[in-house]
Amino acid sequence: MSDAGHVPGTVRPGGRTARIRTAVLRAAEDALIECGFAGVDLAEIARRAEVGKTTVYRRWGTPQGLVADLLADMADQSVRRTETGALADDLRANARLVLRTLTDPRQGVLFKAVISAAAGDARTAEALHRFYAARIAEWSPCVEQAIVRGEAPDGTDAAEVVRAVSAPLYYRFLVSGDPLDETVADQSAHAAACAAGAGAYVR
Amino acid sequence: MSDAGHVPGTVRPGGRTARIRTAVLRAAEDALIECGFAGVDLAEIARRAEVGKTTVYRRWGTPQGLVADLLADMADQSVRRTETGALADDLRANARLVLRTLTDPRQGVLFKAVISAAAGDARTAEALHRFYAARIAEWSPCVEQAIVRGEAPDGTDAAEVVRAVSAPLYYRFLVSGDPLDETVADQSAHAAACAAGAGAYVR
Repeated sequence: MSDAGHVPGTVRPGGRTARIRTAVLRAAEDALIECGFAGVDLAEIARRAEVGKTTVYRRWGTPQGLVADLLADMADQSVRRTETGALADDLRANARLVLRTLTDPRQGVLFKAVISAAAGDARTAEALHRFYAARIAEWSPCVEQAIVRGEAPDGTDAAEVVRAVSAPLYYRFLVSGDPLDETVADQSAHAAACAAGAGAYVR
Repeated sequence: MSDAGHVPGTVRPGGRTARIRTAVLRAAEDALIECGFAGVDLAEIARRAEVGKTTVYRRWGTPQGLVADLLADMADQSVRRTETGALADDLRANARLVLRTLTDPRQGVLFKAVISAAAGDARTAEALHRFYAARIAEWSPCVEQAIVRGEAPDGTDAAEVVRAVSAPLYYRFLVSGDPLDETVADQSAHAAACAAGAGAYVR
């Protein structure tokens, strides 16, 4: 959990503020997993989190605001990149991390709920885009280091290589419904490394 | 429009049955575009389509049933594959077709609404998966022909190459929010052709 001591609109000490935020975000996560975005009701979340309703309304304002803060917290807490010294291995680690997230019973449902909510709400979409921008930025140095090592040509768009690793997994998860397993994850990473090596992502 | 003369539960001649189906599916499409899945109300759709409410309830039963039939109709009406004689060109044609669909003001909103509905409803998800299975099957012969021509190795998973062309576009559309344009579409097709040529999609 990031330090929540500087959240605007509060004068409480960081410790208690952080505890409240943790409890409310966990309750929001549970509500999203159980009922989707339609289940994010601030009064009910306050009750579940055992936090005053006024606090929740003052601090998060709307279900959209709460989901945006949950996404910010998810970005803060996300797993750091793996640096193995070889592009193919780094990308495989990335693909397997995405696979574990999407196939995890709670996380998978949570991501589906949030992505689905973003399809119908601009503020949630912005928060979702910030989450993915943070994840892409976290993994891009693996590609930048590969360029320095000569594994991909100068001018390769590092962010696009990272997107290419995740994209086939999300496509199956959200769109085609085809199975998601390690074979698929590894193939996706291998294909992205191949295409990057061949210069397909040079800007 | 496919011949709707054999739709079970009706004894009307094909012509009138087909006209009713067209009117109801167009009204369903409008409702999805305007209000998302929550806007698919059978009574309201019957009114808009100028069709008896009883007919709509008897034939489609539920909003989920109606959206499933709309997806079946979308699959029937979808554009056929392009065969240029070169894998890179065929895949580029596929990528540009997906791009046009997702960036079209009506179609883009419609796809987002249906994909979002599928995230929360198993029957809609099944219909969505059938739609994409049909689209992947439509374009797979381009890859199979490329294997015969020696542009990709024997054992290449044609369906996976087709998925790889679309996946980065859907990733941007649904997840990361990064821009979608011809440069991105062409790069996606080029990367898939590169990786296929290098044997990355051999099963």
